[in-house]
Amino acid sequence: MLILFRPDASATDEQRVVALIQESGCEAVPIPGLRRRAVAVAGNDGRVDGARFAALPGVEEIVTLTKPYRMVAREWRSDPTIIRLPGGMTVGGNPLLVVAGPCSVESETQIRRTAEAVKQAGAVALRAGAFKPRTSPYAFQGLGERGLELLAEVRRDTGLLIVTEAMDDEGLDQVARVADIIQIGARNMQNYSLLKRAGRTGKPILLKRGPTASVTEWLMSAEYVMAEGNPNVILCERGIRGADATTRNVFDLNVIPAVKQISHLPVMADPSHGTGRRALVRPMARAAVAAGADGLLIEVHVQPDQALSDGAQSLYPEQFSLLMEEVRGIAAVLDRTVAGAAAIAASPST
Amino acid sequence: MLILFRPDASATDEQRVVALIQESGCEAVPIPGLRRRAVAVAGNDGRVDGARFAALPGVEEIVTLTKPYRMVAREWRSDPTIIRLPGGMTVGGNPLLVVAGPCSVESETQIRRTAEAVKQAGAVALRAGAFKPRTSPYAFQGLGERGLELLAEVRRDTGLLIVTEAMDDEGLDQVARVADIIQIGARNMQNYSLLKRAGRTGKPILLKRGPTASVTEWLMSAEYVMAEGNPNVILCERGIRGADATTRNVFDLNVIPAVKQISHLPVMADPSHGTGRRALVRPMARAAVAAGADGLLIEVHVQPDQALSDGAQSLYPEQFSLLMEEVRGIAAVLDRTVAGAAAIAASPST
Amino acid sequence: MLILFRPDASATDEQRVVALIQESGCEAVPIPGLRRRAVAVAGNDGRVDGARFAALPGVEEIVTLTKPYRMVAREWRSDPTIIRLPGGMTVGGNPLLVVAGPCSVESETQIRRTAEAVKQAGAVALRAGAFKPRTSPYAFQGLGERGLELLAEVRRDTGLLIVTEAMDDEGLDQVARVADIIQIGARNMQNYSLLKRAGRTGKPILLKRGPTASVTEWLMSAEYVMAEGNPNVILCERGIRGADATTRNVFDLNVIPAVKQISHLPVMADPSHGTGRRALVRPMARAAVAAGADGLLIEVHVQPDQALSDGAQSLYPEQFSLLMEEVRGIAAVLDRTVAGAAAIAASPST
Amino acid sequence: MLILFRPDASATDEQRVVALIQESGCEAVPIPGLRRRAVAVAGNDGRVDGARFAALPGVEEIVTLTKPYRMVAREWRSDPTIIRLPGGMTVGGNPLLVVAGPCSVESETQIRRTAEAVKQAGAVALRAGAFKPRTSPYAFQGLGERGLELLAEVRRDTGLLIVTEAMDDEGLDQVARVADIIQIGARNMQNYSLLKRAGRTGKPILLKRGPTASVTEWLMSAEYVMAEGNPNVILCERGIRGADATTRNVFDLNVIPAVKQISHLPVMADPSHGTGRRALVRPMARAAVAAGADGLLIEVHVQPDQALSDGAQSLYPEQFSLLMEEVRGIAAVLDRTVAGAAAIAASPST
Repeated sequence: MLILFRPDASATDEQRVVALIQESGCEAVPIPGLRRRAVAVAGNDGRVDGARFAALPGVEEIVTLTKPYRMVAREWRSDPTIIRLPGGMTVGGNPLLVVAGPCSVESETQIRRTAEAVKQAGAVALRAGAFKPRTSPYAFQGLGERGLELLAEVRRDTGLLIVTEAMDDEGLDQVARVADIIQIGARNMQNYSLLKRAGRTGKPILLKRGPTASVTEWLMSAEYVMAEGNPNVILCERGIRGADATTRNVFDLNVIPAVKQISHLPVMADPSHGTGRRALVRPMARAAVAAGADGLLIEVHVQPDQALSDGAQSLYPEQFSLLMEEVRGIAAVLDRTVAGAAAIAASPST
Repeated sequence: MLILFRPDASATDEQRVVALIQESGCEAVPIPGLRRRAVAVAGNDGRVDGARFAALPGVEEIVTLTKPYRMVAREWRSDPTIIRLPGGMTVGGNPLLVVAGPCSVESETQIRRTAEAVKQAGAVALRAGAFKPRTSPYAFQGLGERGLELLAEVRRDTGLLIVTEAMDDEGLDQVARVADIIQIGARNMQNYSLLKRAGRTGKPILLKRGPTASVTEWLMSAEYVMAEGNPNVILCERGIRGADATTRNVFDLNVIPAVKQISHLPVMADPSHGTGRRALVRPMARAAVAAGADGLLIEVHVQPDQALSDGAQSLYPEQFSLLMEEVRGIAAVLDRTVAGAAAIAASPST
Repeated sequence: MLILFRPDASATDEQRVVALIQESGCEAVPIPGLRRRAVAVAGNDGRVDGARFAALPGVEEIVTLTKPYRMVAREWRSDPTIIRLPGGMTVGGNPLLVVAGPCSVESETQIRRTAEAVKQAGAVALRAGAFKPRTSPYAFQGLGERGLELLAEVRRDTGLLIVTEAMDDEGLDQVARVADIIQIGARNMQNYSLLKRAGRTGKPILLKRGPTASVTEWLMSAEYVMAEGNPNVILCERGIRGADATTRNVFDLNVIPAVKQISHLPVMADPSHGTGRRALVRPMARAAVAAGADGLLIEVHVQPDQALSDGAQSLYPEQFSLLMEEVRGIAAVLDRTVAGAAAIAASPST
Repeated sequence: MLILFRPDASATDEQRVVALIQESGCEAVPIPGLRRRAVAVAGNDGRVDGARFAALPGVEEIVTLTKPYRMVAREWRSDPTIIRLPGGMTVGGNPLLVVAGPCSVESETQIRRTAEAVKQAGAVALRAGAFKPRTSPYAFQGLGERGLELLAEVRRDTGLLIVTEAMDDEGLDQVARVADIIQIGARNMQNYSLLKRAGRTGKPILLKRGPTASVTEWLMSAEYVMAEGNPNVILCERGIRGADATTRNVFDLNVIPAVKQISHLPVMADPSHGTGRRALVRPMARAAVAAGADGLLIEVHVQPDQALSDGAQSLYPEQFSLLMEEVRGIAAVLDRTVAGAAAIAASPST
């Protein structure tokens, strides 16, 4: 941390800052030769908060030089994290993980038919919500426990891994009994109670980026999970809020290579929410893979025009099949493979 | 809802849309004379979701004409909501409610001294967090239950109303026993489980706007509370995320008059978080009152340079006293008063 | 400037950076005691660009410690700039300058009637565009030279100062012959050729903030004008782009006190563009004054429902009169006055 | 256009609106069956501006149903525009156009060596600025006319097409004599005088998206060029401003497929500005191609650590060669080619 002084700061102002640094058990090191006078705070293990200095007389600005994250960072672990999933599958290594399915479980027929369709096209995991966070209290909120039962049956019958969202403490325990990967949604990215509890399950956690979260905030939320002893965090970019209604969100693919530089955690991408429009999903799914994503989350529905939620961004199964072919082509350019049907065939059926 | 067709939409495309509207039990009314062909969906009580049509062949765009909110809206209740608080105080009527205090309860001395200082300057309510949502799992997370006990003692001894945040289900029950107003923080604005539970307490709920929430999303979160039978929701603008680091947030005062047109709920403003810098708090607190806010939330600390959180945006007690005088002056220009010491003096000490 | 190294940076990486600093004629000062290794660049008068180091092997981050602006900064001149205008009026000192008028000059009747109305309500300057930058090439682009003639006549007959926008080099010369204050619009905030030419006129320049400009970019555009020897720059906040369509823009009043800390230049506010909706103009004009603005720019039209542009945000003259009363009230709370009719009466009519 | 009424609008309010619609020569068509009363404005050829109605008593909201653009839209021309360039090259058809080069022309050696390097790697066009819009008036502003001379020589000697930026009227005429494609930079996207003048040159215009421009604003700026009779507009996404400093910009690739649905114009992408960091350029260039971009603009410098501007985002020539190989691979997955050395070899050398 550096503390920069205003040009008109007095000697007393500087001494006050130095004294406060020393009181905190750190060392105050003056920085020579800059146009503005400055002191560095040396030996700060995090206990001195820059905000304390920010509004003292004579202080112009606090520059934080250390990053707040620890376990999520490459400094802590330079090799990429490869998360092991049932059936010998992984995420974070060479093979891409493609997860597909409807926004929510709506009925037995709907979820079974969609599961078969995505499996046939090559997906190895099914995503569908039993508990749905909806902006309106009057909108369909998911089938709840019955939805989880249906997912458990589909898992048993198809071998597809199950990815589904937990919204609160109670739901988390239920979800943890069925899901292979527990999703924490964008709206709950900073629900720290939920993150801690998710950490304690030990299960792989798919952590969606909040619609306005900075990369640092997102990584700090992953840190909450890891700090509970759970290293299995998958980050997932799903679009940030933009000023232009032409697309529902701005799909911020820059963060894929940027986060992979900073962190060892796998990063997936959700072009369905990232674009909000069916016609944009295929090109942007390709783009995400080209940018280096470790996997995709794709909304697919056998009858998008009947969907109870997110129909406008759900692919038809045929579109998803075409997408899978393109994804394999682009993965090959990057010397990567796509985890596929073989993996499922070989997997134990629970 | 209107469904607009692409210029190249076929008759079949239009018939498909009309059929789907009719299947949903609504009526399809063609709109004549526009440059683009369009049908309106008449008789839709909310059960038809525009997303179903959005990606059908030939459909260009869905225009939603009805607002999703109900109970929060002026259409539902044209008079402003005036929330009654202990001690005969109110929020949402003529008198402004000024709530002040430190970011968090740090110690008995700190909270008692700050409470006395803000009371002396004219605040009628004390805000301080016992449970703190922090971006880092390693940062000070609040004193928890002990913090609530201290707040209860301060309440008893000073007559100040208590405003404090609940972060999760368990904490909510604890907070509800002590707080006169329960704060739901910005990060939890879309934590729907928490909102429902807050609704069920029946207590006044201070609902902070999320850092990127649209006005509609914010009002829908208020709707979650009201849908549980709790009409006592106070909205609070606290800054949205901006692209410029010069200020910590963009304090979006436009929403104060804008929301008051749409909704009957009281709207307060938090210039401490809205600016993030002590030197900006006074001018922007004045601005919030001038824009029509029903009250203010101000961070005050007896020793900001020793604060465990948010020190950079906390006022010294003397600054808060000056601010109170300015607030009274501006309120008078708008023919409003500021709920003051008299109210507290008259209040039962619980 | 500080250069921070990655944890895995080699000695060679550090030496390369040090050598490059020295080649540039600066000194490399290692910073001890931080968790990350770092060197400061001492003696840099601006000739060393941090970008050179940003992507060298082993370099993690460049932290710029000096601000790019010079003449606009308080460091360069600690007293506030008070710009002298014809008729003994000023902006930047105690009295607020209220400028009002229609978005564009539409006809002789319209501009004369509006001028009289705003003068009667107490405005001392008339703003109206002769050249209008419009998003569409097919929209009304202003009356051009004829508009300027009408403004010159109104000036002569009413004593009102004239504020009008220049969009390009040719127009700038024409505008400079008529205007007392030349407006550079938000879309041209970074049209550097125009800024330089505006600087060379020596006339007061009203520089609107671009809809996404950072404070630094805005001040650097003012620096372009000042670097041509023209110290008479008035900054004007007019709203930045936000993600919510509830209001046309986010009116970023935080920048008023924030800029006044950094710069000695006067700062005005334009609540008409800042809100985009007539019903929000009065509360937000009050808020701007309460936040410390040195003046207001208000759209007023005698027949807003007939306006060729911006009708939705133009006040009726009666509304403007009420606004002026409120502005005087709030100014008084801050011990400020509003430049008024007396000033005009005393002014020479050119 | 639809005009929606407030629930409490009176019959008089509605009649006032209907009368105003009729006065404007349009027809007012009531829309039955909606929850809110509404009238459609039929027969509006653009002359009625919604803003007129927006703030009338009883009016709640104006919904614009027609898009403001004409010539840029697919409705006007359904086939994609293929722009013919010297040497038989094109942009907008199957082959991708890769343009590479340094931010600015710095010296004869620098520009010649970089030109040779990018040609060898397979680029067919050289981009380099002679006139540079810089945020600071004190920063390097380009070599000006001498820079253009050097570009003309390089063009003659290498056969590379020249892409260079024009910043103002005077510079535009100079640039037009040398450039094969004239770039209008992001800061000038709404400099309408410049756009009109660029339109009149008849030359291909590369129109960068402004850092906060909506898709509609961007297309309307293209419309300004086309309205002058110049159909040769190439759109170029270069990143929008985001709230997170982790990357310089948010590279908004969603707009590539989104704009291609709306418009027939070619869309290129600039991952150098879109990311601002060298390490992100390759993955995001791949992503842009995968998303459907018609070409790339890549900053390449023989000595990025000596660059006078944008060094941090410039690739080394070797990195650019690797990128070209990846681009060819991804293009092949999409059944596209990359315009290459063969094209240049065959091209007349001016």
